[in-house]
Amino acid sequence: MDRLPLVNGLLKYINKEHSYFAMPGHKMGKGFRGDAASLFNDILKADVTELPGLDNLHNPDGIIKEAEERLSALYGSKKSYFLVNGSTSGNMIAIFSSFKEGDKVIAERSCHTSIFNGIILRKLNPVYIYQDFDNRYNLGIELSEQNVLNAIRENPDAKGIILTSPNYYGAAINLENIIKEAKLHKMTVIIDGAHGAHFIASNNLPASPISIGADIVINSAHKTLPALTQSAYLHVNNESLISKADFYFHVFNSTSPSYLLMASMDYSRYYLERYKTEWDRLIERCDRTRAKIESLGIYHILDEKELFNSKLDRTRYLINLPSQVSAYKLKDILLKSSIEIEYNDCNNLILIFSPFNTEEELDKLYEVLKGIDINSLKGSTIKIKYKFPKPKQVLSPYEASEQKGETILLKDSLNRVLKRAIAFYPPGIPCILPGELMDIDTLNMIEYYKENKIDALGIQDDKIEVVLERKI
Amino acid sequence: MDRLPLVNGLLKYINKEHSYFAMPGHKMGKGFRGDAASLFNDILKADVTELPGLDNLHNPDGIIKEAEERLSALYGSKKSYFLVNGSTSGNMIAIFSSFKEGDKVIAERSCHTSIFNGIILRKLNPVYIYQDFDNRYNLGIELSEQNVLNAIRENPDAKGIILTSPNYYGAAINLENIIKEAKLHKMTVIIDGAHGAHFIASNNLPASPISIGADIVINSAHKTLPALTQSAYLHVNNESLISKADFYFHVFNSTSPSYLLMASMDYSRYYLERYKTEWDRLIERCDRTRAKIESLGIYHILDEKELFNSKLDRTRYLINLPSQVSAYKLKDILLKSSIEIEYNDCNNLILIFSPFNTEEELDKLYEVLKGIDINSLKGSTIKIKYKFPKPKQVLSPYEASEQKGETILLKDSLNRVLKRAIAFYPPGIPCILPGELMDIDTLNMIEYYKENKIDALGIQDDKIEVVLERKI
Repeated sequence: MDRLPLVNGLLKYINKEHSYFAMPGHKMGKGFRGDAASLFNDILKADVTELPGLDNLHNPDGIIKEAEERLSALYGSKKSYFLVNGSTSGNMIAIFSSFKEGDKVIAERSCHTSIFNGIILRKLNPVYIYQDFDNRYNLGIELSEQNVLNAIRENPDAKGIILTSPNYYGAAINLENIIKEAKLHKMTVIIDGAHGAHFIASNNLPASPISIGADIVINSAHKTLPALTQSAYLHVNNESLISKADFYFHVFNSTSPSYLLMASMDYSRYYLERYKTEWDRLIERCDRTRAKIESLGIYHILDEKELFNSKLDRTRYLINLPSQVSAYKLKDILLKSSIEIEYNDCNNLILIFSPFNTEEELDKLYEVLKGIDINSLKGSTIKIKYKFPKPKQVLSPYEASEQKGETILLKDSLNRVLKRAIAFYPPGIPCILPGELMDIDTLNMIEYYKENKIDALGIQDDKIEVVLERKI
Repeated sequence: MDRLPLVNGLLKYINKEHSYFAMPGHKMGKGFRGDAASLFNDILKADVTELPGLDNLHNPDGIIKEAEERLSALYGSKKSYFLVNGSTSGNMIAIFSSFKEGDKVIAERSCHTSIFNGIILRKLNPVYIYQDFDNRYNLGIELSEQNVLNAIRENPDAKGIILTSPNYYGAAINLENIIKEAKLHKMTVIIDGAHGAHFIASNNLPASPISIGADIVINSAHKTLPALTQSAYLHVNNESLISKADFYFHVFNSTSPSYLLMASMDYSRYYLERYKTEWDRLIERCDRTRAKIESLGIYHILDEKELFNSKLDRTRYLINLPSQVSAYKLKDILLKSSIEIEYNDCNNLILIFSPFNTEEELDKLYEVLKGIDINSLKGSTIKIKYKFPKPKQVLSPYEASEQKGETILLKDSLNRVLKRAIAFYPPGIPCILPGELMDIDTLNMIEYYKENKIDALGIQDDKIEVVLERKI
């Protein structure tokens, strides 16, 4: 056993050079340059505490306040916050600030886990909107605007709506009509924009939800900007929510916040403001390479024209492969050429670019893809439909979470009520939530995933946690 | 205005050399050396995401699992976790895992804010134990063991007890009898040991609460070990709480956890294990310097003999000054000599040492103190009693937090029920909590603090938030 398993695992990784097309946006340190290089070159020294002159994140009145005010001005919010506990904490703050116990809310079913955790802890009654399934990509790429509008009209008593935009695939739903309709019904609009912090940089990117009137928007700074992993921005755009957001900010963010994370958030705000044309140049590079890769006649990259009611973030690729070609094998070949991708499932790969990915790196990606013999990628692709069944909710997520549980074999779980969610990575969206009834479709799908050795959250040694059955 | 306020503020700070007697334990980077230096020298490159081989903090089965198992083995817990959202998140996880809504709990009133936030969000009914006031130090330095035992016996229906040990001053209450009594009444024992991560290093330090049978212990890794700010360890020592802790871990910690924080936690566990004798040597250095400083006849450093039922962490100093001597003035003089302290109030200073503070640095502290003309420190000390009144609770903290609020002038708040806590820095412990009634003693004390320009949380422009008065 390694005496320093994590330190040495990382060391092994960083000792190789990579073309890094994954999060975070600084691309293994390359983004910390120019005006901030002297700080980031000596960053460990800057890991200090709230000393005189260095302000206090939980009660800012100095340099942190100034930095947050600049952030708010840039995004056009009423108030913006540096989050040191990621978009995870931003989603929790948004839900706790916007809703009260027992409130009905409309939520996209393909939301991030933290949204569901917020729904559980705040004891909300959710109504879900499901994505449409896209057979070509074998996953749900976007929400239907019409379905969202219908959900609002059919649930006029809902207190709010929670959507993800853009999603992991880069699809950003058109929010104008949705927000207008939600406001007609006095609903609070929360947008988990974890992947869209860079949208304000260019008109060639989808619109920023703040500018369209969303009440709260959460942006991961680290995902697309030169900021450290785990850093995020919370934008509150509705005066009446600020005092609550102030309180819940304390609850979900460490009172010993990292100055490294905070400094990187100050820097990425500055970078975005001062060098925003870098994103236009990045889009040009991405578009050029996209056309070249498409011209190979094998790989298809998601195009905005394929989207029904969304705009596409052209700084990321969703590369779709021909059937019988394994994305796992392709990933391995790319890795051997030191090309790191963000994610893959059986059919698709996701690559995330930032201004710190050079022309040379994109050229290399093209050249490697061009050099691959497609026959070498054929074979054992895992045929899974990423389309989720819709299990019936019989207890509220909170009620189920708080009930006494028992651990049973997955195969014996038919007609039992889940105490904890089950989710698969990829794509990480829960296929069944606490309070939902295990039906045969869901069970079959879970068994099929397991046979194919897909990582499961909520299953351990073939067992899952269900609500204790009370004898009637 | 500075275009990079936070980055440049930090840069200004790190461009000076300091004898650093504050948190974190790595002392401005000096602690990252030896076996891990090659990683920490290139740390920004290691800020990556969950790539193949690098495991996943939220579902560990590789290097993170191995690192956490080593942590658990070292502390002797049933299961230990790396927290990337500080002890703040550990306290929330502990409370949510141990208690259900409406549970009665016994809590030290001088707990960290996050404990009170947990009490609010989990809707607990708290019974408080107050510290005894120490006139010499003008603050409450320790809890009375007898008071704690009485609280347990008088509230046998309480589901658990939450104590801080050690506290900010280094006092670690004797837990043997307390835990025995709590267990007699089937209470869950949570110890916020944020300041005691290093206790397992030496028999010359107070005992680790895990070894005495506490159910959950939270240690800030960064405060005393060579770990980055915001990193903490959660130790669960009770099998029946593990599944709940697993769930709440997800809720309160980012799903984009920082590999920098995690690597530093792996390293500090390793350092503690391999170089534990460094703490004995540190204690020797501290004891020697303590005796020299005492011999000056002016400064008094808290000694274990003064404590009634606590052990003292001798790796920190609580330096008490003669009356009419200003701790603020002394801090300024130390700062001019590039000696950074952790904290001061009117009468006292706190200095926190780690193995990375050298003999030379401690000598320098002594020499600077020796060279000070005591007359230059005399004058405007702020005469505040850190003794808090005990306002009456009329609504549960949760109920009050959820009520409609109104913002009124502090001076008009007599007999109103608080919606948000008011706390002063230093020392940061709330003097009135949500649901408590403003009485004349509390109001006078708050007014007195304000006149003396002590930083206040919960007061803005002389206004505070109270529960909206409903007409009867």
